[in-house]
Amino acid sequence: MSRILLAAATVVGLAIAAPAAADEGMWTFDAFPAARVQSAHGVTIDRPWLDRVQAAAVRIPGCSASVVSKDGLVLTNNHCVVDCLVALSDGKADYMKDGFLTAARAEERTCPGMFGEILVSITDVTARINAATAGKTGEAYGAARAAATLAAENEACKGVANSRCQTISLYRGGRFAVYRYRRYTDLRLVFAPEFATAFFGGDPDNFNFPRYDMDAAFLRLYEDGKPVGTPAHLTWNPAPPAAGEATFVAGNPGSTERLLTMSQLETARDLSVPLGQLQRSELRGRLIEYGRRGPEAQRIVADAIFGVENGFKVAYGRQLALTSPAFMTAKREAEAELRARVVADPALAAEIGDPWAELETVQQAYARDYQPYRQLEAEAGRGAHLFDWARALVRAAEERAKAPGDRLPEFAESRLPMLQRRLLSPTKVEPELEQLYMEFWLLKVREYLGADPATVDLMLGKESPQGLAERLVSGSRLGDPAVRKALWDGGLDAIKASDDPMIRYALTIDAAARGARKTWEAEVTDPTNRAAERVARARFAVYGDSVYPDATFTLRLSYGKVAGWTWQGREVAPFTTFGGLFDRATGADPYAVAPRWAAARDRLDPDTVFDFVTTNDIIGGNSGSPVVNTRGEVIGAAFDGNIHSIAGAYGYDGSTNRTVVVSTAAITEALTKVYGREALVKELLGK
Amino acid sequence: MSRILLAAATVVGLAIAAPAAADEGMWTFDAFPAARVQSAHGVTIDRPWLDRVQAAAVRIPGCSASVVSKDGLVLTNNHCVVDCLVALSDGKADYMKDGFLTAARAEERTCPGMFGEILVSITDVTARINAATAGKTGEAYGAARAAATLAAENEACKGVANSRCQTISLYRGGRFAVYRYRRYTDLRLVFAPEFATAFFGGDPDNFNFPRYDMDAAFLRLYEDGKPVGTPAHLTWNPAPPAAGEATFVAGNPGSTERLLTMSQLETARDLSVPLGQLQRSELRGRLIEYGRRGPEAQRIVADAIFGVENGFKVAYGRQLALTSPAFMTAKREAEAELRARVVADPALAAEIGDPWAELETVQQAYARDYQPYRQLEAEAGRGAHLFDWARALVRAAEERAKAPGDRLPEFAESRLPMLQRRLLSPTKVEPELEQLYMEFWLLKVREYLGADPATVDLMLGKESPQGLAERLVSGSRLGDPAVRKALWDGGLDAIKASDDPMIRYALTIDAAARGARKTWEAEVTDPTNRAAERVARARFAVYGDSVYPDATFTLRLSYGKVAGWTWQGREVAPFTTFGGLFDRATGADPYAVAPRWAAARDRLDPDTVFDFVTTNDIIGGNSGSPVVNTRGEVIGAAFDGNIHSIAGAYGYDGSTNRTVVVSTAAITEALTKVYGREALVKELLGK
Repeated sequence: MSRILLAAATVVGLAIAAPAAADEGMWTFDAFPAARVQSAHGVTIDRPWLDRVQAAAVRIPGCSASVVSKDGLVLTNNHCVVDCLVALSDGKADYMKDGFLTAARAEERTCPGMFGEILVSITDVTARINAATAGKTGEAYGAARAAATLAAENEACKGVANSRCQTISLYRGGRFAVYRYRRYTDLRLVFAPEFATAFFGGDPDNFNFPRYDMDAAFLRLYEDGKPVGTPAHLTWNPAPPAAGEATFVAGNPGSTERLLTMSQLETARDLSVPLGQLQRSELRGRLIEYGRRGPEAQRIVADAIFGVENGFKVAYGRQLALTSPAFMTAKREAEAELRARVVADPALAAEIGDPWAELETVQQAYARDYQPYRQLEAEAGRGAHLFDWARALVRAAEERAKAPGDRLPEFAESRLPMLQRRLLSPTKVEPELEQLYMEFWLLKVREYLGADPATVDLMLGKESPQGLAERLVSGSRLGDPAVRKALWDGGLDAIKASDDPMIRYALTIDAAARGARKTWEAEVTDPTNRAAERVARARFAVYGDSVYPDATFTLRLSYGKVAGWTWQGREVAPFTTFGGLFDRATGADPYAVAPRWAAARDRLDPDTVFDFVTTNDIIGGNSGSPVVNTRGEVIGAAFDGNIHSIAGAYGYDGSTNRTVVVSTAAITEALTKVYGREALVKELLGK
Repeated sequence: MSRILLAAATVVGLAIAAPAAADEGMWTFDAFPAARVQSAHGVTIDRPWLDRVQAAAVRIPGCSASVVSKDGLVLTNNHCVVDCLVALSDGKADYMKDGFLTAARAEERTCPGMFGEILVSITDVTARINAATAGKTGEAYGAARAAATLAAENEACKGVANSRCQTISLYRGGRFAVYRYRRYTDLRLVFAPEFATAFFGGDPDNFNFPRYDMDAAFLRLYEDGKPVGTPAHLTWNPAPPAAGEATFVAGNPGSTERLLTMSQLETARDLSVPLGQLQRSELRGRLIEYGRRGPEAQRIVADAIFGVENGFKVAYGRQLALTSPAFMTAKREAEAELRARVVADPALAAEIGDPWAELETVQQAYARDYQPYRQLEAEAGRGAHLFDWARALVRAAEERAKAPGDRLPEFAESRLPMLQRRLLSPTKVEPELEQLYMEFWLLKVREYLGADPATVDLMLGKESPQGLAERLVSGSRLGDPAVRKALWDGGLDAIKASDDPMIRYALTIDAAARGARKTWEAEVTDPTNRAAERVARARFAVYGDSVYPDATFTLRLSYGKVAGWTWQGREVAPFTTFGGLFDRATGADPYAVAPRWAAARDRLDPDTVFDFVTTNDIIGGNSGSPVVNTRGEVIGAAFDGNIHSIAGAYGYDGSTNRTVVVSTAAITEALTKVYGREALVKELLGK
C-alpha cells in the first residue's frame, strides 16, 4: 500500500536537479534557500526555525512523521501504519476497518518492525572521501570509497547510544555527508481512524486527488517501556491556514529523476512507462474480478488491488507529464540551453564530452534489452511470495558461497541480516493469489518475449503457464517459515538437495535471469550512470548552488503556499470541508462514511477545513510529513499529491503540482466530536 | 472476433496514400501499377489476368473470399465464418470446437445473414457528381451529392437482377466510381476445421504472428436451392510457392490512415491509442479472470476475450510503429518534403494554405474533448447489448420523429432497415457479462472524468457503478426481442412511457452524450476533415498518380513476394511445416492439436508447407483474401498479418510488414489425410 510513501522502483540515472523555479525544490536543511523564500513569500526562515523543525521530524519505514507533544506523540498518515494495523488485528478485531482507538496509554500497542529516526547532525565528509578515492578507478575506487564511508560512519556514531549513521551521496557524488540519527525501535500505536475515513473517495478520487480523507494516525515513541520525553516537538495549531499562506513540508522524499535527458524521457514515454502500465492494467482487472467472487476473495485481494491502483496512478501521472507538449517543450529547451552553455565553454566541454549523445545511443540497447530484463529479472514473479522466497534463497546460497567482492550488491554481508529477517518472518500465503500472480507472470513472459526464444522454452517447456503455476504453488512448502529457515541455514547443499518445486524452478531459470540482468547492467545501467554523472557535473558547473540534490529518502524541506489549481478549464479550490464530505457521501463504497462519522454528523462543524492543497514540491516518501506554517507550528500532515504532482518525478510544474494535506483543524475536531479522544486532544494542545 | 477482418473503428481523416515504396499499396483493379510490378518482380500482369482474378474475388461481411471451383465453392477463413458456426451449433453439436464437415452437398447448411458480392463493373462518375455539386457548399452540397450518387447507383443497377450498386469516394473525393456487384444471399457452409486447428498457438502466437494455423473454411454459393455454376473461378494449385516468388492478394482492405500528419500521429501515440489500450487491458484481465470461475463462465467469455485480445494486438502494433524512431522519422521527413514542395509552388500554396498547422491546433481540442466523447458516446456501454439496444431505441425514436435532413447520419431512412434488423433479431444475453461490461464502463467514466463533473453526477447520482449496473441489467426486459419490437414500433411515445430501467437510463443521459458528440464533431472531426482534405489535395498535386487511395473496404490488389523478416536480431523463416506444428504442440491449450490431427500424424507429410508469409500490403478486411501466383492460381488464403503489419494503418514498411497465409498445400493435404474429404479435394483440383 502506498500513497506518497516510498515505493521500490528501478531508477536509472538520478542526478541533481534543474535550476529551481518558484516553490520548486526539496532542499537539505543545511542549504535551505531562505533568501529565495523571503523574496517569494515575504517570510523569514532562520537557523533556529530550521533546527526546531529538524528536531521534530521523524523518518519511519517508507514514510515521514513528526513529534507533536512533549510525551513522544508522533503524527503520521494512516496509510503509513497499515502494516501495524494488519499485524495487530485478529479474528476479534479488524483495526483496518474499524480504526484503532485507545482510552489510556496502557492500551497503546507496539507496532512490529516499526522504527523512527530523528536526524541529529549532518557532517560533510566530501574531502575525506575524495582523498581516499583520489586517482582510483573501477573496483579499487569502489573498495576505497566503501572503506572510507564505513570509517566515517563508525566514527560519527562511535559511543553514541541508539544512533544510526548513514553516508549520503548528494549531487551524484558532488558532495558526501554523514547523517547521524537518533533511533527509536519501540513505536506504539495510539490512534488510527477507520479505513472508510482515511480513504473516503478511494480510487476514483485518488485518480485525480483525494480530498475528504482523514489520512492521519498517531504513534508514540517508547524507550524502556515508557513514553519518551520530547521537549523539542512541534506546536499543534488547530486552526486551518488561509489561502495563499506560506507552508513548509519537512520529510523524506524518496527519489526523483529530474536530470533525465530528452532521449531518456522519450524511452520512459514510449517504452518503460506504457509497458508497465499495460501489464498493471490487466493485473488490476484480474485482481478486481477475482475479488468479485465473494467476501473472502475480496479480503484476500484488497491490499493487492490497492497497491496496483496506486502504481497505476503513479504511472498515469508520469505519462500525463511525458505526453504533455508544454512539459516536454520546457524540458527540451532546458536541455538545449545547458548543452549550448557547455559547448560555449571549451574547458567544460572537454571535461564533459557529449553525454547526451551517449545516452541517445544507450536507448537502443534499452529498447533491445528491456523486455527480457523486465520479464526475467526485474518483475519476475512479482507479487508471488513463494517465488520471491525461492529466488532469494537460491541466490543467497549461491552468493554467500562467494567472496564478498564478487557478490551481487544485495547480498553484501551488511545486507544479509535484513534479508534474513524478510525471508524468515512468518508471512501469510494465500495460495489462490500466489497462483494468480505466478500464472500472470508466466503468461506475460510468453506474450512479450514470444513463444520462440530458448529462454521461454526453458521457462515453460511443455507446460501451460496456468498448469505450471499450479504445480509450483500447490507443491511448494516454502509457506512454512521453518522450511525456509532450513534452506537458509543449509546453504547451497540444502538448496541443491531440495525437491521443493519452487526451489527447483528458481534454480532452473536462474542462469537465464542473471544473464538478462548482466546484459542490462552492462549495456544500459552502467553506461547510463557514466553519462548521467557528466550531465550532472555540467549542470553543477553551469548553474552552481541554485540547484538542490535529487531526492534520497533523507530529510528535506520544501516551501510553498496554500493554493488551488486549474485543470481542463475547471478551478479546484484549495480547501474541502466536513460539510462537503457529507454532501459527497453516497452510502456506497468508496463514498460511504464510517458509522461513527454518520452518528456524529450533527455535532460536527460543517465548515471545518478537512483537507487542503499546497504548492509544496514533494514526492513518494513524503507521506506523513508535517506541514508547518511560518511560525513553525504543525497545521497538517501531507498524505498525497494530485495527479499532476506525480510529474514531480521528472520536474516540478508550479501551476498544477499540488500536495494534499489533512489539516490539524480536521483532526482536532474529529478526535473531539467523532472519536471522543479528549485526552489526546489535550495532549496535542499542550494542556 | 477478428483477425484481419474488418473492425469498426473511429477513423479521423482518411485520405489518399503516400508515394508508394516497393510492394506498397492497395491498388484498385482499374489502376494497377503493372509496370512497377514488372520492374520490381519481373512478372507481367495484364488485363485478362486482372479480369480473371476480379471475377473470382468475393466480398463477404467483414471479410474477403474467392471462388475456387466451377460449382460455386468459396474459400475464406475459419474466423470469417465463426458467426455461422455458432448459429448452426446447438446442444448436440459444437461446430466451433469440433469443426463442420460435410460428406455430401445435401449436408451443406445456409449461414444465416451471410452474403457474397462479386464486383462486376467499375464506372467512373466523377464528372457527373462534380457537375451536380458545382458551386454548392454546406447542406446544399451534401444534398446535391447524395441525389447525384443515388441516381448514378440506380442507373447502374437498373434492370440488373441480384445486383448492388455502391458509389465509392476515392482519393477523398478526388474520384467517384460506382461499383456494381453481383449479389448472392444463400451461402452454405461446406467445411470448417476445429477451433484448435484454426487458432493453434492462440493469443501468444497471435501476439507476434500465428504460424501453424489452418484458418480456412469453405462456403458454397447457392441460388434457387442449387449450387451456382461459376466457370470464372480461380484454379487451385496444391503446390506451395517458393521463397521469393511473387504473390498477389485480392481482397477488401477496410481502412487505412496513411495521410495522418505528424501532429495527428502524435495524438494517436500519446492519447487515443494508449488510453484505449489501458482500458482494454483492464477489461482483458477482468474477462480472463471471470472465465476462471469454471467451464460455463469460460464459455460465456470466450468470444469476448478473443475480441479484446485481438483489439489489444492491433493497438500494440500501432503503438510499436508510433514509438519507432525510424518510422516516425520517415513520416516526419515525408511531411517536411511535401510541405516544402507546397511552399515552393505559390499557386498551390495559395490553394492549400497550411492544413498542417490547422491540424496542430485541432489537437488541443482533441486532447480536451476526447475523454468525454469517448466515455459518454463513442465507447458508452461497450459490450453491453442491453445498453446498446436501449440507446439505439431511444435515439431511433427521437430521430425518426425528425425531418430526414435533421437526423444523425446513422438514422438516415436508408439505414433504418439494417438498424431494425440489428435491434430486433434474437440475440442471447448473458446477464453476468452485461453486468461486467456495464460496471466496467461506469467505473471508467468516473475514473477518467473524475467524480466531480455534473455529467458524472447525472450518470451515477448516489449509486455505485456496481450497484447501478446491477439495477439496470437485472431490471431490464430488453433481452426479449418482442419488448424491443414494441418499443421500436411504438416510437417516442412508447419510449417515454417505458419503465424499463435501461431505457430510462439511456433517456436520462442522452442529452449529455449527444452534447459530448456535438462538441467533438464541431471541434475535432469537422476541422480535421476540412484540413485533411487539403493535405490530400496537396499530395495529389505533388505526386500525381504514383499514389493509391486509402482503403475503403472495396476490391484492391496488392503485390509482393514470399519472404521472412528479421526482428530483434532473429530471422523469421517464410514457411512453417506440419512437422513444426507437432514439434510445437504441448498438449495444453492453446498449443494442443485437435484429436483428428493427433490421430493422423503418421499419415501426414511433415514437410508440407503449412503457413507462409509475404510482403503484400494488407489490412483488416483482407481476411480470407485469395493469395494468387503469377499465373493467377490460388496458392493460399491470407488470414492475418504479423505484429508489424498493423503499422500498415499508418504506413507500409516492407522490411517488417508481413501477410500470413495458410497454403493450399496444407489445406489439400489436411482435407485428404486428416479429414478424409476426398470429394472436396477432387472438386478443388477440377477432377
